[in-house]
Amino acid sequence: MQAWKDYQEKNKERFLNEMLDLLRIPSVSAKSEHRDDMQKCAEAVKKSLLAAGCDKADIMPTGGHPVVYGEKITDPAKPTVLVYGHYDVQPAEPLELWHSGPFEPVIKDGKVFARGSADDKGQFFMHVKALEILTGTNTLTTNIKFLIEGEEEVGSPNLGKFVNTHKDLLKADVILISDSSMLSLENPSLDTGVRGLSYIELEITGPDRDLHSGTYGGAVANPATILAKMIAGCHDENNHITIPGFYDDVAEATAEERELLNKAPFDEKAYKADLGVQELWGERGYTTYERTGIRPTLEVNGIWGGYTGEGAKTVLPSKAYAKISARLVPNQSSEKITEILLNYFKSVAPPSVKVKATLHHGGEPYMTPIDSKGYKAAAKAIEATFGKAPIPVRGGGSIPICSILERELGIKIIFMGFGLDNDNLHSPNEKYNLENYYKGIETIPYFHQYFSALS
Amino acid sequence: MQAWKDYQEKNKERFLNEMLDLLRIPSVSAKSEHRDDMQKCAEAVKKSLLAAGCDKADIMPTGGHPVVYGEKITDPAKPTVLVYGHYDVQPAEPLELWHSGPFEPVIKDGKVFARGSADDKGQFFMHVKALEILTGTNTLTTNIKFLIEGEEEVGSPNLGKFVNTHKDLLKADVILISDSSMLSLENPSLDTGVRGLSYIELEITGPDRDLHSGTYGGAVANPATILAKMIAGCHDENNHITIPGFYDDVAEATAEERELLNKAPFDEKAYKADLGVQELWGERGYTTYERTGIRPTLEVNGIWGGYTGEGAKTVLPSKAYAKISARLVPNQSSEKITEILLNYFKSVAPPSVKVKATLHHGGEPYMTPIDSKGYKAAAKAIEATFGKAPIPVRGGGSIPICSILERELGIKIIFMGFGLDNDNLHSPNEKYNLENYYKGIETIPYFHQYFSALS
Repeated sequence: MQAWKDYQEKNKERFLNEMLDLLRIPSVSAKSEHRDDMQKCAEAVKKSLLAAGCDKADIMPTGGHPVVYGEKITDPAKPTVLVYGHYDVQPAEPLELWHSGPFEPVIKDGKVFARGSADDKGQFFMHVKALEILTGTNTLTTNIKFLIEGEEEVGSPNLGKFVNTHKDLLKADVILISDSSMLSLENPSLDTGVRGLSYIELEITGPDRDLHSGTYGGAVANPATILAKMIAGCHDENNHITIPGFYDDVAEATAEERELLNKAPFDEKAYKADLGVQELWGERGYTTYERTGIRPTLEVNGIWGGYTGEGAKTVLPSKAYAKISARLVPNQSSEKITEILLNYFKSVAPPSVKVKATLHHGGEPYMTPIDSKGYKAAAKAIEATFGKAPIPVRGGGSIPICSILERELGIKIIFMGFGLDNDNLHSPNEKYNLENYYKGIETIPYFHQYFSALS
Repeated sequence: MQAWKDYQEKNKERFLNEMLDLLRIPSVSAKSEHRDDMQKCAEAVKKSLLAAGCDKADIMPTGGHPVVYGEKITDPAKPTVLVYGHYDVQPAEPLELWHSGPFEPVIKDGKVFARGSADDKGQFFMHVKALEILTGTNTLTTNIKFLIEGEEEVGSPNLGKFVNTHKDLLKADVILISDSSMLSLENPSLDTGVRGLSYIELEITGPDRDLHSGTYGGAVANPATILAKMIAGCHDENNHITIPGFYDDVAEATAEERELLNKAPFDEKAYKADLGVQELWGERGYTTYERTGIRPTLEVNGIWGGYTGEGAKTVLPSKAYAKISARLVPNQSSEKITEILLNYFKSVAPPSVKVKATLHHGGEPYMTPIDSKGYKAAAKAIEATFGKAPIPVRGGGSIPICSILERELGIKIIFMGFGLDNDNLHSPNEKYNLENYYKGIETIPYFHQYFSALS
């Protein structure tokens, strides 16, 4: 619609600057020293919602960081779209690998570099600006509700309770989330689901203190060696996970689904070059898209033990640790897989060490039906602005609140992400391409238009 | 000899306090912030040597921390004993595990707790006090030279050159070192050798930055998983090292040697209880003494990669690291094993990661002949004060300077250690039993007496 385009064109610079202001607030939910920044960020989000046309916006308390809720109700009879997003960000560490300050956004080569630029401030803010366009051009044909939380990066420990106690307030016909990526601007895609998660930690204890590796080496089990053996045993020579029961409930994708998935263009050479690797790796018999989409995985997220400082220390460590997480696909249960993992690592350890295995957090896999009104509206909106229908793909990441939102509110979730896989989410130099930002703002009004037309 | 006993009895308290004063100086050679402390400690050692009866004592520069040299020449025609020791200590970290300050010595249950108490200040200082007894009672029948260095804990990088340029000064008939342990006061032992060392570091690089484990998990090699596989592959199910060529040059101990070694009393239950482990571990077919004495070993001294902080971060790490060291037995060459290790880890890595393998430092294994005058004198000295002949054992640790000293000076080394295996060397709460300290001071004069008698 020309009016939307004109409005954005006229306000382009301000739309960017407002996003940058949000990125300047270091709203790291994991660190208690940022509590004031979290509050400051919630205030900024609330202000932006009111400025964009919300009838009301509130900072609502939870057991942890607050939720920002806003709404623009045009007519209770019209369909309601609930936009979910999060204003908290991952810790920025390791700081020394950033080329510019994580909370001092820099624009370079058409990209905004800052923690939270793609995950998720830059993305949820597109919806705020889309609302401004729709109200500013008097073309809003839906009701819009915003649920912007502050604890997504720490596993949303308080969101379930919040949603449960505010079911009426959050009542809607569809949930729209921009917190994921698409293949590229040339090959837009639309997620049909996200993977689940089971994240555990292992503590392996050998001797009750660090020992001299000369005096005791060879006679006492080294917990770092044992841990390495435990981890090494999790994958066979085909990189298939060997843990008994791990694949039991996996819903195998149909031949049609796999075919559709592999229709998405994949430039292996460019993919490898972007990551700086010589060769890819993964479960034999599956393509890269399948490995990151329809197959469950097991990754070491962190490992440590013994002397890790400069130089050499001849120590046989007392303890070794690992953070390990599995990504889950439909039909797998996070709770069940967590049990399987915890028991497995306890069972394979030799009696010469002690194993403590604990859960960090988990989340269920989620699938969205492609024949739903929401998916169709999103696909049509993308086609309207990108000039081609999006490719249906499976997202590799996890949005643990999906199953909570569906369970509590009884409605489906649409993942309309505008990020790119190489946005460096959770890594140094996180970025969000300006073109993706503007294209998102351009696309979202179409979603509302089509969704109301289909309803 | 009664005169020696009386002298020690009369000066017991001062002998202890002087040792404690030395322990209060944080002479950590690895850390540049302790450079002044190193100098201060060298001054204190020099002063103590002069006070004990040395004709001269000097702080002599090297490319790194200085050497303290002292001598008491009674008669050039008499045999000369060169005492080697080191005044530097290991870093005290992790500090939070110490029950008292590492440089604030505390006496509890007959033990001195402090960094350096057993390794090696408390042990080389026994020789200083023995010299005082011998000169104080006018009974010294040898010449004594002291070579107390300040870089043992960082691999003695400058000692070879120092010894080479001061061959005349250091000329002697035997080298005596107290920097190791004995089985117990009830079962005194005397080392017949020490193991060699080859200490390397691995850096495994997967993608060129940390990645989101959801977006890329399953499709890109995780360097922590690869490293775990590389480490796990180093030992087979019998805990035998699998690295090709590793055992090629090992001098197998004879049946007699093994029989003698296993005559040493070993209380497995007490050994396990002391370490807090349920079961021991090691190469099948060998006893604990054999595993730590006559067999080469491979240990992970440190491992790290990815997110190691509090909580959970869903990251696929860019890099993973390990510090790995092998202990070597006679006929193995540190240089050759280092080459084997570096090449092995490079060769077993899949092409999906890059491997950087580098040497930290190494040292040759060393054997001392039990039919030498020095060994016999040490055995007789121990029998004189402990009431029983020492059991010949192999020390598990490494004293890399041994082969340098023998090469440069052409004389044999005697390891007359008075520590215990559970002295927590290189660990928090390092300690040295007072009884061992006093017993050592009592024994050393006999060594000089017997060595001069045998010469």
